[in-house]
Amino acid sequence: MDVSIGQPPGAPVRSGIPEHGRVPKYYTVKARVAALIEELGEGSPLPAERELAVRYAVSRETLRQALRELLLEGRLRRKGRGTVVAGPRLKQPLSLAGHAEGPRRPGAPAGRALVALERFPCPEALAPELGTRAGEPVWHLERVLLASDERAGLESTYVAVDRAPELDTDFDPGASLHSYLRERRGVGLGEAEERIETVLATPREALLIGTSPALPMLLLHRLSRDSHGRPLERSRTLYRGDRFSFTTRLAGLAG
Amino acid sequence: MDVSIGQPPGAPVRSGIPEHGRVPKYYTVKARVAALIEELGEGSPLPAERELAVRYAVSRETLRQALRELLLEGRLRRKGRGTVVAGPRLKQPLSLAGHAEGPRRPGAPAGRALVALERFPCPEALAPELGTRAGEPVWHLERVLLASDERAGLESTYVAVDRAPELDTDFDPGASLHSYLRERRGVGLGEAEERIETVLATPREALLIGTSPALPMLLLHRLSRDSHGRPLERSRTLYRGDRFSFTTRLAGLAG
Repeated sequence: MDVSIGQPPGAPVRSGIPEHGRVPKYYTVKARVAALIEELGEGSPLPAERELAVRYAVSRETLRQALRELLLEGRLRRKGRGTVVAGPRLKQPLSLAGHAEGPRRPGAPAGRALVALERFPCPEALAPELGTRAGEPVWHLERVLLASDERAGLESTYVAVDRAPELDTDFDPGASLHSYLRERRGVGLGEAEERIETVLATPREALLIGTSPALPMLLLHRLSRDSHGRPLERSRTLYRGDRFSFTTRLAGLAG
Repeated sequence: MDVSIGQPPGAPVRSGIPEHGRVPKYYTVKARVAALIEELGEGSPLPAERELAVRYAVSRETLRQALRELLLEGRLRRKGRGTVVAGPRLKQPLSLAGHAEGPRRPGAPAGRALVALERFPCPEALAPELGTRAGEPVWHLERVLLASDERAGLESTYVAVDRAPELDTDFDPGASLHSYLRERRGVGLGEAEERIETVLATPREALLIGTSPALPMLLLHRLSRDSHGRPLERSRTLYRGDRFSFTTRLAGLAG
């Protein structure tokens, strides 16, 4: 079998070919399907598994392993009973206006669906992060983030009840919480600390977001303060790793 | 089997229990092993697979699926022939001084091992990103990033040869490229754009970093400019998703 992928010099080093040449067979197939994806272009249906297995002279199982990774990486996606070439990942700026709170951008999450809004006594560990005391009531708001035609992520937000006493009756869960706090409660956003990592979706999360379990996700933890520097909100937002990337602009150190 | 995980209200919503109660068996085991990990603490050896399978009354295969996910998530790690409880993920600030270039922090990458340094004519697409013309010579520097006791990632950097004509003879590949450019070439760093996503390790990358293939990784693409705003460098750095998280501080929008 032809294992050459024809990578030009200077191409990103992703050819996947170890120097000693031991390339798993599925990976060679994956590289060939990846090249086919480039040719076909976004939205095109992939040929049937059976046909591809014959074309690359591999077993259905080997072919499926290659397709599984391309699905996990978001280069293919399921559509109805078939598989089509996916579009590029959505780029989400890392900023307070970014995730689902700022002006809507093409491809950015365009809505939210309520999963749960519950009220409970603040645990010790959460109190300083929300600027309240242990035992005081806090809200937990859990919402699915929606992009144009799909579920894109899952957001859990914690905020003290005294910041928004009527959240359960007065707030449209499809709307931006930050806008609500600003417009109805006069609370502006100051700065935030954010932490990004990759985690595997739990079965519950996969069910809510509509992905397969164990899909790699991007998880953003955020602690934000109001414009007076007082702790305001803790959130934990899970984005589909196959559909999102995050962008940021860094300032230099040397003046 | 006991599927209750005893999660307190207000705990992060990671219990993994779908509302309708259909929890895969391996996931229940995973949650119980996760609780055991908490009890044992960092560095402790995990009991033998055989013993755990008996304790939780599941097959070895079900147990292994649970352990596999905990390994992928970096909550366990292999040590010699056994498995031990891993430490917390290393927090890496998102800043130009951050990855392997700034002052050394505890747990931050503490060195680099050269994989390749090659010189090739600049492809069309790369030229504007490096501030040079297509066909002019460019360097590709590929290095494994080392943390205190392990390989932490893999970095590919592209820079025009006219920025550092003697990179192949004059530069210690274990050192910081940014420091070299500043100290030996008088080129300071200005600002950079960065994009973060999650990808699966290729077999070649897994081999170089010493992880299993298909481990979720965090991939940082960076385009940086010098202090005069001229394009300087393109880099692509892969960090072990089970060992790293990235932190950033965001400024508010509302004044």
